[in-house]
Amino acid sequence: MSAPIDFFSKALTQYLEVNGIQYAYRRFGNASGVPVIGFQHFTGTLDNWDPISMNGLAQEREVIIFDNIGVGNTEGVTPDNVAAMTQDAIAFIEKLNIQHFDILGFSLGGFIAQQLAFVRPDLVRKIIIVGSAPQGVKVLHSFPQLIQRAMQLQPAERFLFIFFTPTELSRAKGMATLQRLFARTEDRDREASQQAVLAQLKAITAWGTDPVTIDLSQITQPVLIIQGSNDEMMDSDNSYTLFKQLPDAILTYYPDSAHGSFYQYPDQFVNSANFFLNN
Amino acid sequence: MSAPIDFFSKALTQYLEVNGIQYAYRRFGNASGVPVIGFQHFTGTLDNWDPISMNGLAQEREVIIFDNIGVGNTEGVTPDNVAAMTQDAIAFIEKLNIQHFDILGFSLGGFIAQQLAFVRPDLVRKIIIVGSAPQGVKVLHSFPQLIQRAMQLQPAERFLFIFFTPTELSRAKGMATLQRLFARTEDRDREASQQAVLAQLKAITAWGTDPVTIDLSQITQPVLIIQGSNDEMMDSDNSYTLFKQLPDAILTYYPDSAHGSFYQYPDQFVNSANFFLNN
Repeated sequence: MSAPIDFFSKALTQYLEVNGIQYAYRRFGNASGVPVIGFQHFTGTLDNWDPISMNGLAQEREVIIFDNIGVGNTEGVTPDNVAAMTQDAIAFIEKLNIQHFDILGFSLGGFIAQQLAFVRPDLVRKIIIVGSAPQGVKVLHSFPQLIQRAMQLQPAERFLFIFFTPTELSRAKGMATLQRLFARTEDRDREASQQAVLAQLKAITAWGTDPVTIDLSQITQPVLIIQGSNDEMMDSDNSYTLFKQLPDAILTYYPDSAHGSFYQYPDQFVNSANFFLNN
Repeated sequence: MSAPIDFFSKALTQYLEVNGIQYAYRRFGNASGVPVIGFQHFTGTLDNWDPISMNGLAQEREVIIFDNIGVGNTEGVTPDNVAAMTQDAIAFIEKLNIQHFDILGFSLGGFIAQQLAFVRPDLVRKIIIVGSAPQGVKVLHSFPQLIQRAMQLQPAERFLFIFFTPTELSRAKGMATLQRLFARTEDRDREASQQAVLAQLKAITAWGTDPVTIDLSQITQPVLIIQGSNDEMMDSDNSYTLFKQLPDAILTYYPDSAHGSFYQYPDQFVNSANFFLNN
């Protein structure tokens, strides 16, 4: 195998106007076949995708990541519910003239992945869901309290608190991840605005408290679920519940890891994600 | 990548005398680094290993499979407990002059894997456990009844009943597996004897009913657990329990699959097993 290409650091932010809004996005990789589109976590922007995972996927397919409305460099007001976020994402993707794609949904992005596959199954080929949960899960009832605890920490400690376990090994992997996320020094995205934070907070909490509207048994696409052993935010057990409700899902748990399981095991993730998407 | 070599069909059965017993075994693959040794399921012999998985592993390491005492072409009386089976296996492996190895334990072989790693951690580098369970699980209390039901079926239907789900897709994968297992026409192993069947039945049932003696938290080796979504024999949930008790385990569930998950998804299995053993 030839040396992997660093697509990710070279991909400049581009803009596309959809319904009067300028969406920020990056597009990179070996463009052949079905692209994979990344849906980001709570407060996450283009710069919260791990270069190892992005480049690993990009060796074998085209990768598109974007800021949804009101997030990072994309203008507008972030909606406070997953259904509207999903409609905004679909509008952007259709404006890119992409009719069929794979999804990589991380956390909140995994909610959108479920919603999108449920309301527009025609668009979706395969789905990867990392650190997420089905609708109606109890743990999200106290999501605001968890975030309040996190917000009292300094940024690096907050990142470790949310995405990694307290063990020395996991924290070291977290610090290494932070370095990768900050390796890009130019053409960076804006941090999420206060409005975006509050709207997403509401949307995520509602995912746990609102009535269930998605019938997961109707999502017939192949799904790869990745979760850490100790995700306090989503409650790791919920990935097993999600797995059981989806008719065609593979589920993998990683050891001594939390919400950021694929940050902690990026090479392992790339191996299984590429195998899943290619076969 | 060059075309894979068919090591498995070319590997002849060899014999090694240990404590007066002739052990039957086969040894094949690219001999470099740490070998992986396969521990077989209830009534399973050398011919119950899937050629796809065996060849997939053998491209990147040496693979050793053997009949434990009283099974297949290995002489002697099969013991009725996992601890004794483990001692017999260790005696054979030490006679091969192997001091450090990886384990692939399938079902009953996964019990022996746990026991071996617990009593002789010095021998074991990494462990793969397929379709298995920790000690003390309730589902094994009715293992004799399940086997009694299975024994009333014709051989092919019995194989499907134990290792696959009732769906059309899973059954088709089961029939394809059977063809692979019977592709070898010469130098085949004997079927398990009645004595071996009864002794193993007792050992497996006791794994669920006897007091727990293994402290899984002491098994610090990396473990890869593979399980089907619907393993009635082991109860799929028990793999999640096993995962939670082991300090360094990865767990993967496959969809619409039962006790023979790696028979059903051999390419997926080879991809993750090789990544796990290589990294």
